[in-house]
Amino acid sequence: MLASALRDGTAERRCVFEAFTRRLPDGRRYGVVGGTERVLEAIENFRFDEAELERLAEDHVVDETTLSWLRDYRFRGDVDGYPEGELYFPGSPLLTVRGTFAEAVILETVILSIMNHDSAIAAAAARMVSAANGRRIIEMGSRRTHEESAVAAARAAYLAGFTATSNLEAGRRYRIPTAGTSAHSFTLLHDSERAAFESQIAALGADTTLLVDTYDISRGIATAVEVAGPGLGAVRIDSGDVGVLARQAREQLDSLGATGTRIVVSGDLDEYAIASLRAEPVDGYGVGTSLVTGSGAPTAGMVYKLTDVEGRPVAKRSTHKESRGGTKSALRRHKDTGTALEEVVFRTGRGFEDPKAGPHDRVVPIPLVRGGERVEDLPTLEDNRERLRHALVSLPWEGLKLSSGEPAIPTVFQAEETA
Amino acid sequence: MLASALRDGTAERRCVFEAFTRRLPDGRRYGVVGGTERVLEAIENFRFDEAELERLAEDHVVDETTLSWLRDYRFRGDVDGYPEGELYFPGSPLLTVRGTFAEAVILETVILSIMNHDSAIAAAAARMVSAANGRRIIEMGSRRTHEESAVAAARAAYLAGFTATSNLEAGRRYRIPTAGTSAHSFTLLHDSERAAFESQIAALGADTTLLVDTYDISRGIATAVEVAGPGLGAVRIDSGDVGVLARQAREQLDSLGATGTRIVVSGDLDEYAIASLRAEPVDGYGVGTSLVTGSGAPTAGMVYKLTDVEGRPVAKRSTHKESRGGTKSALRRHKDTGTALEEVVFRTGRGFEDPKAGPHDRVVPIPLVRGGERVEDLPTLEDNRERLRHALVSLPWEGLKLSSGEPAIPTVFQAEETA
Repeated sequence: MLASALRDGTAERRCVFEAFTRRLPDGRRYGVVGGTERVLEAIENFRFDEAELERLAEDHVVDETTLSWLRDYRFRGDVDGYPEGELYFPGSPLLTVRGTFAEAVILETVILSIMNHDSAIAAAAARMVSAANGRRIIEMGSRRTHEESAVAAARAAYLAGFTATSNLEAGRRYRIPTAGTSAHSFTLLHDSERAAFESQIAALGADTTLLVDTYDISRGIATAVEVAGPGLGAVRIDSGDVGVLARQAREQLDSLGATGTRIVVSGDLDEYAIASLRAEPVDGYGVGTSLVTGSGAPTAGMVYKLTDVEGRPVAKRSTHKESRGGTKSALRRHKDTGTALEEVVFRTGRGFEDPKAGPHDRVVPIPLVRGGERVEDLPTLEDNRERLRHALVSLPWEGLKLSSGEPAIPTVFQAEETA
Repeated sequence: MLASALRDGTAERRCVFEAFTRRLPDGRRYGVVGGTERVLEAIENFRFDEAELERLAEDHVVDETTLSWLRDYRFRGDVDGYPEGELYFPGSPLLTVRGTFAEAVILETVILSIMNHDSAIAAAAARMVSAANGRRIIEMGSRRTHEESAVAAARAAYLAGFTATSNLEAGRRYRIPTAGTSAHSFTLLHDSERAAFESQIAALGADTTLLVDTYDISRGIATAVEVAGPGLGAVRIDSGDVGVLARQAREQLDSLGATGTRIVVSGDLDEYAIASLRAEPVDGYGVGTSLVTGSGAPTAGMVYKLTDVEGRPVAKRSTHKESRGGTKSALRRHKDTGTALEEVVFRTGRGFEDPKAGPHDRVVPIPLVRGGERVEDLPTLEDNRERLRHALVSLPWEGLKLSSGEPAIPTVFQAEETA
């Protein structure tokens, strides 16, 4: 595409591309934007090095003109978009990229890869955080996904309200809190469970989490309190019917005077399992597989479509797949109580008037890149974490239900030309 | 764990860890090993740099002793395992790592990340290749998964028999064939569909694939043949009821004399959709989302368990989660016809006798690492691609059915001590 467009001169046409999703994953009531910050970093670093160019040349993937264009590539256009932690709905204009066709089209894969992955994880994580209802929830899924996805997933989980991650590289790269745990192998390594507990407490003190289900849980708890004393930080149960086991563990810990010792459960938890434990004496959750695989929706299904060429709206027309041409923005309308009402997607630019915003309404996209340079003082990961917390509170109450349903608020397309 | 074990001296105990899966994803009849080669590379490169160590120190994640141990880390043990492209079943000993506790335990996450991801993709890909029944099938899913997973997914798809990938970085990194395609944006960019087709043909010649469904498919095909002539390489249809459309397209192409022009279909295809198109005049498939998300099984669910400490078998005992202690190998038994019969998982080492192998049986794991050094002349990606092709042919015919079912062959655990 790039080679052809450079050859025929259309490569330089001013274009607008938009990232959006036609629908939420089956039954989901909201989406959560994740990855915007990583996208900006990827755009800044989008260059072709000599090894890459050589391979393209050797294999005759592109011609000389294209190679030299790629050698000098850097994005010089503008980007607007939904900040991370923002909710989205079908048709929300999540990212709008303005530039020449050539400079904008080659960003498609990296933009969608990042946003489809990180948003899928963030949405699943947000549902789990809702289900955990204020209890600690720790991301422990690294080993069930690609080694680099794992780092991004830990970040997306934190964005969505997870307390910490077991992924140390995510901690280092994004400065998010980390938390460790010991595995069954640590207990099995030692001559006895007692020896393992003694060793862990000698190294980390009594305010640690002992894994008590390697052999027999009630014996494990008894040994843990004997070794650590009633000041033991926490016990972790990783298998079995964790609701029942948590109740038994609580009783046993209390009877041993370890009333402050917390109970952490893990082992194939998803948002439904977490919600079902709400009435049990569980103090924290460790979540792995279901988080890093998006809990049934491993990709957000976003697409990146050309919407304008030289100011003229364009859209595919052959099928029922809805695509709307023209550059868009979105206004989220709210009731006076602050509850979200609808997502108004509107056309921008000459001939279009912005919809009237009430005092509780707000335009969702923000400027992210201008002339290839990242806008200064963009919100931080912590800001965006807070943003999501607020946004979830603003949803109509049905919107937070875990069951399958319609999007929490409708998307209204306002596309009448007013001029 | 590491800090505690270094402190109490157990870190140096000789251990064996095994990667295996307790079950296949729901209804799957076989698993496909992917990622072994990437695991070996990751083990070779497993080092801690100063930035990483600094962060661990700053945040008091580990103590001084552990930091200095990590600084000098390199794996010096042995690894045996299933080569890539091999089939596996519940309990197959996919990777066996022998070394000190410390050096083997810290590899858990990277080993499982790689194998869980790559095997999930390879298994989905193998089912799609079976369904495509010899037709070309191209991996185009990069934008629906994490940007680095995308590269690994392209590799796993090629291992499993895909013809090519649209991921150029995978082509460069692993020397696998790449294939491109033009998007609707390329057509929309131009003043007309005809102008877009003319441009593409001027750049790439008539033996290219024109995307014909931007406006109206039959007009698109007519224009494509007018512009390219009957020597047009292929047309691609990306939306609608592709079976019906492919038949209409074939008739139209034939009537225009373009009898050699191929028809490529894409757009939310999975193994079932591919199979349902078997009777249609489709020459090639482009597969995206369902491939890179493992077609419903985005992770292979492998675990990494300690099985031996200083020659003594160990296993968790608290629940029904089956774990079998002791170092194991596996023999795949076959009938005289070459059809696989069963996976015999057997204990190795002192006191155990290997099961008798018939002329068609073979021990599945191979040596991969000795004393920290990768074994020489390991099979290549091409060898392993061929391995899978052969292995699939050896399955009982029910094993290749796409419908849900039991594992294609049973796993038999042979654990009687003979001495």
